[in-house]
Amino acid sequence: MKFPSPVSVQWLADLIGARLLGNSIGFVRGINEIHRVEQGDVVFVDHPKYYDTCINSAATTIIINNETDFPEGKTLLVVAEPFNAYLTIVKHFRPYEPLAKSISETATVGEDTVIGPGVVIGNHVSIGKNCIIHPNVTILNHCIIGNNVIIQAGTVIGSDAFYYNSKKTRELWYRKMDSCGRVIIEDNVEIGAGCTVDRGVTHDTIIGCGTKMDNMIHIGHDTVIGKNCLIAAQVGIAGGVEIGNGVTLWGQVGVSKTLRIGDNATVLAQSGVPGSLAANKIYFGTPVEDAVVKKRELVWIKRIPELWKKVMES
Amino acid sequence: MKFPSPVSVQWLADLIGARLLGNSIGFVRGINEIHRVEQGDVVFVDHPKYYDTCINSAATTIIINNETDFPEGKTLLVVAEPFNAYLTIVKHFRPYEPLAKSISETATVGEDTVIGPGVVIGNHVSIGKNCIIHPNVTILNHCIIGNNVIIQAGTVIGSDAFYYNSKKTRELWYRKMDSCGRVIIEDNVEIGAGCTVDRGVTHDTIIGCGTKMDNMIHIGHDTVIGKNCLIAAQVGIAGGVEIGNGVTLWGQVGVSKTLRIGDNATVLAQSGVPGSLAANKIYFGTPVEDAVVKKRELVWIKRIPELWKKVMES
Amino acid sequence: MKFPSPVSVQWLADLIGARLLGNSIGFVRGINEIHRVEQGDVVFVDHPKYYDTCINSAATTIIINNETDFPEGKTLLVVAEPFNAYLTIVKHFRPYEPLAKSISETATVGEDTVIGPGVVIGNHVSIGKNCIIHPNVTILNHCIIGNNVIIQAGTVIGSDAFYYNSKKTRELWYRKMDSCGRVIIEDNVEIGAGCTVDRGVTHDTIIGCGTKMDNMIHIGHDTVIGKNCLIAAQVGIAGGVEIGNGVTLWGQVGVSKTLRIGDNATVLAQSGVPGSLAANKIYFGTPVEDAVVKKRELVWIKRIPELWKKVMES
Repeated sequence: MKFPSPVSVQWLADLIGARLLGNSIGFVRGINEIHRVEQGDVVFVDHPKYYDTCINSAATTIIINNETDFPEGKTLLVVAEPFNAYLTIVKHFRPYEPLAKSISETATVGEDTVIGPGVVIGNHVSIGKNCIIHPNVTILNHCIIGNNVIIQAGTVIGSDAFYYNSKKTRELWYRKMDSCGRVIIEDNVEIGAGCTVDRGVTHDTIIGCGTKMDNMIHIGHDTVIGKNCLIAAQVGIAGGVEIGNGVTLWGQVGVSKTLRIGDNATVLAQSGVPGSLAANKIYFGTPVEDAVVKKRELVWIKRIPELWKKVMES
Repeated sequence: MKFPSPVSVQWLADLIGARLLGNSIGFVRGINEIHRVEQGDVVFVDHPKYYDTCINSAATTIIINNETDFPEGKTLLVVAEPFNAYLTIVKHFRPYEPLAKSISETATVGEDTVIGPGVVIGNHVSIGKNCIIHPNVTILNHCIIGNNVIIQAGTVIGSDAFYYNSKKTRELWYRKMDSCGRVIIEDNVEIGAGCTVDRGVTHDTIIGCGTKMDNMIHIGHDTVIGKNCLIAAQVGIAGGVEIGNGVTLWGQVGVSKTLRIGDNATVLAQSGVPGSLAANKIYFGTPVEDAVVKKRELVWIKRIPELWKKVMES
Repeated sequence: MKFPSPVSVQWLADLIGARLLGNSIGFVRGINEIHRVEQGDVVFVDHPKYYDTCINSAATTIIINNETDFPEGKTLLVVAEPFNAYLTIVKHFRPYEPLAKSISETATVGEDTVIGPGVVIGNHVSIGKNCIIHPNVTILNHCIIGNNVIIQAGTVIGSDAFYYNSKKTRELWYRKMDSCGRVIIEDNVEIGAGCTVDRGVTHDTIIGCGTKMDNMIHIGHDTVIGKNCLIAAQVGIAGGVEIGNGVTLWGQVGVSKTLRIGDNATVLAQSGVPGSLAANKIYFGTPVEDAVVKKRELVWIKRIPELWKKVMES
């Protein structure tokens, strides 16, 4: 999430009650998680295991729970609970704004766009021209919809990420990491009925230009889908996934988190994708493999009884 | 889709700007895709590979992009882009009619039918007697619901088909084939919460009398489901499928497109159905097989280490 | 379902037109299915195979279609069609009450709870303090939601069970067993977008304190989920399941009916669970096995060609 305008590191230190070390005259432009962080961002870290990665990332300001070495020019903001500092920043810059009515007065809708009955459009939502938003669709706060987009009935755009910080104390097992990211639906995208597209936790969930999605598809937080993909019904894609251009996922495919699927890859129905996939290939199975290899394997399995017989006879 | 009344071939030629060859005094009753076409229908074809099939089908009028031989008595309508001619016909006879309010004035609702809050009922929808339509259900234009039907909350009936004409040019990869078909839900059907039933592209999607569906089931366009079927939660059925009577599909089963499942077949949970299945049998696996064969195979797999040991020892 | 106050066995016999045998001065506190029955309950049975189980269960009153032996102190209510008697009792004590408006006047909502636009809240629903009910959520009659609960957009709580009595006569294949149970969502639960949680048939469906659910999850009737579970997107859990505390189910897992998953078990993505699972283990596969065993099996399958070669060469 970018802040509406940059803030000084001192202002941010005051907001979260931090002790400031290092560069005290810098500015902060936004907040992001470590794998999405850009120059000018603040990032937070509370486990020594990740100190180095965070301090040496593109982030110029680091919220941390212990004093440690860091490069010149960067700023450390030391607090007891970096996670709470994160929540404080999100609540300040992107507070939860309940919707007073079905279509927020802060939403904008382009020319020739049709909005069906029962549709809910949240605060600060922007919808382009010539779209059809079918009945009972929900588009939540801060989402951005391009031109010529069709969203079919009952779909939810911009639900919160399924993202928790695990504590497992007697009182509290999971702390919700509040989402401050958005969903961006680019031009000419079509989304079927009964889909859910989660907003990014700190970054954006993006559906690329020209991509077509069937019904009941789940897209996790911060996932970025390329252009002109075809995604069949009941596919589930977890958070932080990157999908290239021209990718085809057939029905009921499941894609695990924070992996990459290369351009023009095809994943056959019901397959499970636990790791990254190279471009331009066809995949099948749970866990997924090259489809030719997998189908040959199914033939080999059929030959076990014959093999058994041969061994018994020899 | 049947037209409200038959139109002359000359009128249709004028509508789509076609050159008329052959029978110039015939009538056209409706439009359909090649696998659904009936006598009196017009069909369209733009690839020479399918010319013969279309010209020799039940269709009496053929929209085509090249002059070619055809049987006496039929009519050829020659245009540069048959796909666009299809869209023109659909837009004329079944234009997209946005919904001005939650329950259209052109919808009819039978006696003793209960409509919950948040329900959207589209134009030209007909709902029978003694139904319960639970809250936040969406029933889109032209759908027909029989008597004694229960539709649980959040379900969408009549969403558009996931059906595109692949172009893959730089400017446009996929052209949406506008749906003009309907959904017909017969008497005594019960549909769970959070389901989506797509309308037919040119024909009807039909759920047969007495069939019971659990939650979050996806039914694709033009699929016809028989009578007294049981479909468990999260099943996905692609487009153009024919399912017989008394069929049972257990949870999370996936069914691929344009295949047939015979009467009283049972498909066990999570199975994937890539091709047609015979009647009266039990199936399991991805890809699906006779359940007894598949379960025996799972036992054989368990014996590989034993087999390995035998071979190593011999 | 407990009755609002106990009724005399004689009053119940009159309601359903039964002949009363045995204890004629007892009281009945509620109705339940055999596997949920408690002392003071009435249960119904119409197949001699289950007579003994029902008569010797905790139930003190038994609706039955034939006279038979029974312990002293119990009451037999003899009717021709026990199933119809069940429906009569449900219709009397928990009749279907259509919703006249989006938020029922008999519902109660706690302090600081936010209700989004398009939300439907049924009759006799209770929602605690400090909850967020996102837009277009449906909460049906009699459901109970605790404090600090978040329910994301489009989710349905309290849909009817997918539960039929199979008749398979020419006129009627399935008789709907009307649901009279509730859904209880305990404190600090979070439920994602597009989920469906069915009410119990006679008992309650319960989501335990602190459990977090992702999007598009289906929970069947009478299922009881423990505390602090994590359930990923598109998981489906059938009816009558018991899930312990701290259980993790990854994406697209399917769980069959009336089984038990022990505390802190983890089931990996896309697995299918056909039977009960022990606590504290990791599981994988369809059908599910110990994940280590299953993954070793996948390695063994890869070695079949090598084994074949060895056998051919020997």
